[in-house]
Amino acid sequence: MNFTRLLAPVCAALVCVYSAAAQSTQATQTTLAPLPVPARTLPVPNDVSPEMQKIIAAPRKPGWNDQWSTGEQWRAVADKQAAQVVQTLPAMRQRLHVTVKPDTINGVRVFVVTPDVIPPQHQKQLLLHVHGGCYELFPGESGTSEAILMAGLGHYKVISVDYRMPPEAYFPGALDDAMTVYQAALKTAGAKHVAVFGTSAGGALTLEMMLRAKQLGLPMPAAIAPGTPMSDLTKTGDSFYTNELVDNILVSRNGSCHAAAMVYAHGHDLKDPLLSPVYGDMHGLPPAILTTGTRHLLLSNTVRVHRKLRQAGIDAQLEVFEGTSHAQYQFDDRVPETHEAFAEITAFFDKYLAR
Amino acid sequence: MNFTRLLAPVCAALVCVYSAAAQSTQATQTTLAPLPVPARTLPVPNDVSPEMQKIIAAPRKPGWNDQWSTGEQWRAVADKQAAQVVQTLPAMRQRLHVTVKPDTINGVRVFVVTPDVIPPQHQKQLLLHVHGGCYELFPGESGTSEAILMAGLGHYKVISVDYRMPPEAYFPGALDDAMTVYQAALKTAGAKHVAVFGTSAGGALTLEMMLRAKQLGLPMPAAIAPGTPMSDLTKTGDSFYTNELVDNILVSRNGSCHAAAMVYAHGHDLKDPLLSPVYGDMHGLPPAILTTGTRHLLLSNTVRVHRKLRQAGIDAQLEVFEGTSHAQYQFDDRVPETHEAFAEITAFFDKYLAR
Repeated sequence: MNFTRLLAPVCAALVCVYSAAAQSTQATQTTLAPLPVPARTLPVPNDVSPEMQKIIAAPRKPGWNDQWSTGEQWRAVADKQAAQVVQTLPAMRQRLHVTVKPDTINGVRVFVVTPDVIPPQHQKQLLLHVHGGCYELFPGESGTSEAILMAGLGHYKVISVDYRMPPEAYFPGALDDAMTVYQAALKTAGAKHVAVFGTSAGGALTLEMMLRAKQLGLPMPAAIAPGTPMSDLTKTGDSFYTNELVDNILVSRNGSCHAAAMVYAHGHDLKDPLLSPVYGDMHGLPPAILTTGTRHLLLSNTVRVHRKLRQAGIDAQLEVFEGTSHAQYQFDDRVPETHEAFAEITAFFDKYLAR
Repeated sequence: MNFTRLLAPVCAALVCVYSAAAQSTQATQTTLAPLPVPARTLPVPNDVSPEMQKIIAAPRKPGWNDQWSTGEQWRAVADKQAAQVVQTLPAMRQRLHVTVKPDTINGVRVFVVTPDVIPPQHQKQLLLHVHGGCYELFPGESGTSEAILMAGLGHYKVISVDYRMPPEAYFPGALDDAMTVYQAALKTAGAKHVAVFGTSAGGALTLEMMLRAKQLGLPMPAAIAPGTPMSDLTKTGDSFYTNELVDNILVSRNGSCHAAAMVYAHGHDLKDPLLSPVYGDMHGLPPAILTTGTRHLLLSNTVRVHRKLRQAGIDAQLEVFEGTSHAQYQFDDRVPETHEAFAEITAFFDKYLAR
């Protein structure tokens, strides 16, 4: 009895069920009572590493509720933040024995991230990184930190896409740039040696790239790692409610990150799977490993993508870290959980990428 | 680069880190600030099936805070509840084409749960079911509902263990009875044809059985499915705090279910891995599929077990259902998510059990 056969009738039923649910949302919400939950105080969990405890104990991120409304405003914010981030990168590159060099690929800006030592089994492999930041933040070198982690901890060559962001370009500019680099990678490395990864908006872009590649008839990469993907820009996903003000990074769906994504979306339909990939058809997508945390505002939108991938018969592996908020599994290379998260991604890529 | 090699130094570091964390818990909790979260109202999620929406919208379970303190009191409660549950079972058995017969195996009461049709590839296989209920609830036939789901949806022969509960026996009576049946199954079916599953206290018992089997030098089964295991009886696990009063079934770690487990524990050390299996050494455990939900009070204690299994190099698959509270993936055979959850378990068992 194979999985596809077993699940097929269920999925067929689910499609009907979900359609019905979508149509009757208004009616349902007026008839089913919401749940009032009183105020509470959450202690810092003591079942994570001391390093992660400090990250979890940090106050809500300053600026979480800044609501800028133009690409120009966001670029000013992004540039200021980027200047701070890049100051931390030389020490990180040194700790992880990684070199970063700017380049362009068919007109798209990239950073080539190379570890000092690439083991024989990784020498033909190429990872593409699409950074996060709500489609507005982490321009230039400041977007390379996750690529440095992956290159340094996993020992791969990584190309990090410095995709255009507002006001330079709006939807689908970021996706177009990522696709340009993807198509180049297909030629230079070959699909079976390529994986794509990214977190938050980068996790969404990873999924959007796959849906776009299907539209274009391009081959799929060997594997993907959408980290805690910002997979639904409509206010759908239960953890937008349950983890509001619990997640100390994104804090609220009504906060800064959503405002940024709205500027990128630029009036486009938010239910378009190229903006909200949870609504895409997942059939034919490559094997995927998804990472998130229990306090995460995007917990629901990660597990929903996981379930949709599983319903489509994809080998999709879900990793949920205890007590962590938005993307904290990739905040600091000196935290044990960061090593653990990237070891999982590396093991998954090793399982699926050709050597 | 294989996973074990990559993760090994991390795990070595984690062991030290966790030991240090445990030792410094008091100090840490006084220095790291807790997070105040205001009151909120949670709408019923509209991204689950209409059937599941009704389950999620139900008010907090009556009696969630009943704090009985003796085995006799619990047995009275359990018998009353069981009388109601068994009234629902004939229709369910009929819908799922399953027959249930009481029996005993080496003196332990069991129910043999048999689907009308067992496909050829499942005919040598035998699943053992350990029911949930905080080690106090669901005596006799009332404990068979999850076994009926598994037999009917997965098409396996299932033996459901009607283990002794207080006041008939206290810790480790439930575990001893389950082990008696497990040892019999090893003889009749052979380890490679056996899987063990259960939810909540049944998920914990599933893990406890594996740890006990290691102590006894018994072979492991081919696979296990600990559903949302009650894996930590100490108040450790972040979702005890984040999902308190959000989970509409268990509701609170300080509620009824913990009081019941305390009566079973009967003064025994709660950190004993045979009561809190998250503290056990997971090396050598069989492949495991774990199922839970985003609103679940035991979300953290499911993902913690998942991570510990992964750290020990075990193929452990995590499934998290959107918006659901305690064990709601197995509440009703007419809910699409129930079919989906049991299809995942079936696919996992099909991957690992010999034919």
